Amino acid sequence: MSCVFCAIIAGEAPAIRIYEDDSYLAILDIRPFTRGHTLVLPKRHSVDITDTQPETLAGMITVGQLIARAARATELADATNIGINDGPAAFQTVFHIHLHVLPRRTGDKLAVARGMMLRRDANREATGAILREAVARIDASQSD
Amino acid sequence: MSCVFCAIIAGEAPAIRIYEDDSYLAILDIRPFTRGHTLVLPKRHSVDITDTQPETLAGMITVGQLIARAARATELADATNIGINDGPAAFQTVFHIHLHVLPRRTGDKLAVARGMMLRRDANREATGAILREAVARIDASQSD
Repeated sequence: MSCVFCAIIAGEAPAIRIYEDDSYLAILDIRPFTRGHTLVLPKRHSVDITDTQPETLAGMITVGQLIARAARATELADATNIGINDGPAAFQTVFHIHLHVLPRRTGDKLAVARGMMLRRDANREATGAILREAVARIDASQSD
Repeated sequence: MSCVFCAIIAGEAPAIRIYEDDSYLAILDIRPFTRGHTLVLPKRHSVDITDTQPETLAGMITVGQLIARAARATELADATNIGINDGPAAFQTVFHIHLHVLPRRTGDKLAVARGMMLRRDANREATGAILREAVARIDASQSD
């Protein structure tokens, strides 16, 4: 399979999973800018803003909001940057559309700059567990 | 009125308008990172990801997609960065939620760095006209 995100979605490549429903999968970025940097992937393959259905984008940002609210409910974030890199000139590197959710903390500007160089998390499993637990709690409270 | 985006939406403060419907207004950023840097504003005031309805975010990204596709159909963009700065620690500066659509061009990395320092467009009206015309054309073709 030539698309790494399709392989992850199919369970044929590893990832730390944060959230999943019928149409979307959220995973930790393997090269995070900040701790808890998450990607929301539509399960159906499309490339960028030009070939993705508006409904798919709408659902993707709804999941992104859930992840962002969850991150803000933990020590990982006071704020978040949420975004799509749409096209190679905008730094898209995997050509399966995805939404970045980047946990931010007050005064973390230098840490982010360092994180953009290092791009690793020494304790990915722990980060995944923190975020997964917060997502499940907020998702459950929304369904009430 | 204390919210500058609410004032723009009400027509009480100036802006170069790119697109408008019942629920959203898209305007040029007054301090653009790149030429055509556009903000999509929900007309109904909310602050950030924590108090904005999922439906509002969904509609906001749908308008963002229209702007991005329009920018890509002009000389302004080969690609776009689309994003929300959610909270002060994530560089949110106007506390009325909004989506940035940043036109990008192949090889523009240095130009973007320079744009982030200068943050101005010598010919805002012309940029607005280019983008507004492309948005109207794509919006009409989608409605067919």
